[in-house]
Amino acid sequence: MLYLIGVASFAVSGVLAAARARMDLFGGIVLAFIAALSGGTLRDLLLDRRPLYWTQDELLLTVILAAGVGTLVYIRFFRPPVRALYVVDALGLAVVTVIGTQAALAAGIATPAVLMMGVITGATGEVIRDILCDELPLLLREDIYAIAALAGSVLYVVLDQFGAPATLNAVLAIVLVFGLRLVSMIFKLRMPSLPRLRG
Amino acid sequence: MLYLIGVASFAVSGVLAAARARMDLFGGIVLAFIAALSGGTLRDLLLDRRPLYWTQDELLLTVILAAGVGTLVYIRFFRPPVRALYVVDALGLAVVTVIGTQAALAAGIATPAVLMMGVITGATGEVIRDILCDELPLLLREDIYAIAALAGSVLYVVLDQFGAPATLNAVLAIVLVFGLRLVSMIFKLRMPSLPRLRG
Amino acid sequence: MLYLIGVASFAVSGVLAAARARMDLFGGIVLAFIAALSGGTLRDLLLDRRPLYWTQDELLLTVILAAGVGTLVYIRFFRPPVRALYVVDALGLAVVTVIGTQAALAAGIATPAVLMMGVITGATGEVIRDILCDELPLLLREDIYAIAALAGSVLYVVLDQFGAPATLNAVLAIVLVFGLRLVSMIFKLRMPSLPRLRG
Repeated sequence: MLYLIGVASFAVSGVLAAARARMDLFGGIVLAFIAALSGGTLRDLLLDRRPLYWTQDELLLTVILAAGVGTLVYIRFFRPPVRALYVVDALGLAVVTVIGTQAALAAGIATPAVLMMGVITGATGEVIRDILCDELPLLLREDIYAIAALAGSVLYVVLDQFGAPATLNAVLAIVLVFGLRLVSMIFKLRMPSLPRLRG
Repeated sequence: MLYLIGVASFAVSGVLAAARARMDLFGGIVLAFIAALSGGTLRDLLLDRRPLYWTQDELLLTVILAAGVGTLVYIRFFRPPVRALYVVDALGLAVVTVIGTQAALAAGIATPAVLMMGVITGATGEVIRDILCDELPLLLREDIYAIAALAGSVLYVVLDQFGAPATLNAVLAIVLVFGLRLVSMIFKLRMPSLPRLRG
Repeated sequence: MLYLIGVASFAVSGVLAAARARMDLFGGIVLAFIAALSGGTLRDLLLDRRPLYWTQDELLLTVILAAGVGTLVYIRFFRPPVRALYVVDALGLAVVTVIGTQAALAAGIATPAVLMMGVITGATGEVIRDILCDELPLLLREDIYAIAALAGSVLYVVLDQFGAPATLNAVLAIVLVFGLRLVSMIFKLRMPSLPRLRG
């Protein structure tokens, strides 16, 4: 069930990003699928998990389509603000990072690679979505983005070491990532900038 | 034979896109290879088909090189207009979408995933080519692009259900995709735009 | 040992590129990992080499982190010029192209595909790094980039045919690629431009 929430969040974010970029209706649906499936696809390619989950899962594809079409209808009547995009993106990031971390733990790879795989799974949908919209990815534009995902992945791995139940771990890690993103957006938290290069 | 036409079309489109972006000669050849091979490579990664077709197929690489060099010579003497790029791109999209659909059908994945795989195979070469040229991908900029590929993939799958011969299916689906792209370019057909977000 | 030099070079280049793009500290570390690992990851996906090298190699991840943090400290105190980025990028390109060529030779694929795999492995880290920074990739912006990597890959394959020892081959090919990049930057060497399209 959890993965459907993450995938639906990114599907909604895809339509909102397409609307921000002034695309047409079908472009919105295309971007919903790309945003929803890129992270898990890259994770499965990297971990060599086959067949790819979405080639076998018609429920998943139906949920993406429903979330995409629902968002089309919603924005037609309610014209949400751009920041709605950032909120659903934060939810997608939180859920998909945790799912990626779980899959990487199950694959038995080195712990630093588990953390990286969590961040990669969570952030790839956003990165590809925003590059296709000709926007700088939030991953690199927002100060508290990759580090929020990393914090959630670390929390999950640590709790998992202590044998906490997977569902509790997942909920806590999701709340942490989502909370960090929301707080950083509301209070405009910044990390120190890199020094400027010469020339 | 069919795949050589698709691959050659995208190779030509790569050189034309490089010329539009004012690159040098060797950049044109690099982009020919990237445009020609990206779609099939992603398809084979997603479907786990190994070894990758182009690592074993010297004829294919020769055709790409010949198409690329031939285009270099052609544009040196004839200076084609930018719209030549869109026409060969449309041919590449049509052929490669059909090839991707055939491969996905053979892999026995869920039908919606077959259709997605057709569109992914057909459009990826264009998307990567245009992102590398710092252009918005046609996939998201043109209203009738992804939906034209999807229509061709649907037609192929439906005809295949009725047991029509593969060659006939392929020709009809290619004509449909290519025709939809040409007609939409000539008549500047539009899909409805997404509503604007607030803020 | 050799691969650690290549990977560390790209890690340093990631932090420098992040500084050029005015990112924050953590963005610099993220870009160090992306620049250092993208080329080898794509190579292993294409050649179907599993498990991915970096999921098993904590030394490698430590070297990337150390190179990234070291660069953060260095630029804090010394503010290097932007051209430092191009020099470490040239070293990374040279080393990683050779490593990619070696891996492709070991995989027994067709010779043109070996050369392509060398260029792909060497250039992918740079391409993804620069696209994420919203810069045109050097691969397509610089006239002597892909062709320098190709020259090194050809040299390695030719020497390998003559049975020269792998270490000597590697050093000569690295010197060739690095030298071609430096010379082309110092003397601003150009390749002929593609003709302009009409319209």
